[in-house]
Amino acid sequence: MRITTVGLDADDTLWHNETIFRLTQDRFRALMADVAAPEALDERLAAVEKRNLRLYGYGVKGFTLSLIETAMELTGGEPPGRMIADILAAGREMLAHPVETLPGVDHALADLSQTYRLVLITKGDLLHQEQKLAASGLGELFAAVEIVSEKDATTYERVFARHGAGADRAAMCGNSLRSDVIPALDAGAWAAHIPYPLTWAHEMAETPVGRERFAELASIGELPAWVRGLG
Amino acid sequence: MRITTVGLDADDTLWHNETIFRLTQDRFRALMADVAAPEALDERLAAVEKRNLRLYGYGVKGFTLSLIETAMELTGGEPPGRMIADILAAGREMLAHPVETLPGVDHALADLSQTYRLVLITKGDLLHQEQKLAASGLGELFAAVEIVSEKDATTYERVFARHGAGADRAAMCGNSLRSDVIPALDAGAWAAHIPYPLTWAHEMAETPVGRERFAELASIGELPAWVRGLG
Repeated sequence: MRITTVGLDADDTLWHNETIFRLTQDRFRALMADVAAPEALDERLAAVEKRNLRLYGYGVKGFTLSLIETAMELTGGEPPGRMIADILAAGREMLAHPVETLPGVDHALADLSQTYRLVLITKGDLLHQEQKLAASGLGELFAAVEIVSEKDATTYERVFARHGAGADRAAMCGNSLRSDVIPALDAGAWAAHIPYPLTWAHEMAETPVGRERFAELASIGELPAWVRGLG
Repeated sequence: MRITTVGLDADDTLWHNETIFRLTQDRFRALMADVAAPEALDERLAAVEKRNLRLYGYGVKGFTLSLIETAMELTGGEPPGRMIADILAAGREMLAHPVETLPGVDHALADLSQTYRLVLITKGDLLHQEQKLAASGLGELFAAVEIVSEKDATTYERVFARHGAGADRAAMCGNSLRSDVIPALDAGAWAAHIPYPLTWAHEMAETPVGRERFAELASIGELPAWVRGLG
């Protein structure tokens, strides 16, 4: 059998995530309605997030800090009333938000786990990702969990060497072309892109059309058949 | 040879950490001088940190959020002037703070790494801990790095099974009795406590006198001889 290991992204591949960020961003817009127009606010927040990424990395805690920083900048350091407390509360609610798995996930993973070693490969806050996996009820299906600070080709080489027979005999699956698909292809693995209706600006990338080991799938329900078809 | 793997804590075992937290806390006291007496402030901050630990886990980002929350509570949600911006800046400076290794660390690790598999086992923010290890120049001496959300007996069982011949043939070393020593002993490993001059209240525990596999060392310079003496 060619494929030994299947890597799976978590946020927006197994469960909803970007939706929760967008809801919080809507709430932030409402909080800041007297201070900034929605577009200007989004632009400033994106700039603050980008600037902080090197220090904060990915995840809700860094996002919450970036929301507060954006609010401080736009109010000249004098936020009105309960604005900051409301942002802190929004961040805590994101961390405590129930995990909703995407349709077809349970079935596809149960199927794949009978033949392949499944590895969860995800960025974000360590504790929060562990808690989401536990809440999802999917933990038992994974042979390993790798929570990483960045997803580049080296990450996939290392993870697939540790949990299988190397990237050449592994397939990766996720919603982000930039983080899940392109670096996995660069590492020499197969990679399937399953789009989620929303994509964080930072995760945008061009579809790697023409690359031999790449596939675009409509839903995770198509994943088992695609992996089996690799031989 | 009895021992195959030596686990090492990072913060306050290999490099200064609590000192940096205390300096930030001093700065926070100065910022809040008109609002709360130092003791009342420390007490409130400790309560907020404890309440948030389940959601935020360990590390600078969660600490920064708890500082902001404490400031909000003590100012009735109306923090004066640049207080919040100053706290954000303090948090960012902690993340960017240079890594200062403790005396004797380089020599002890270089020595041990010739005979044993060294594994770094640490809590905290994933990205920040990776960055500190890179900045320390010690990365090459470790066979593996495990950044974990909690250090309990199960953690040590899992890590020492993965990177060696199990806890029975492993030794752990760190400055926290609560996180590094007691759970490692409970897992069946040997454990050496090397105190750091400062200990975060959350990490306090009683010295496990009388436990067979426990040792108290004055500095990391004593570690190689102690490990070799285990046979």
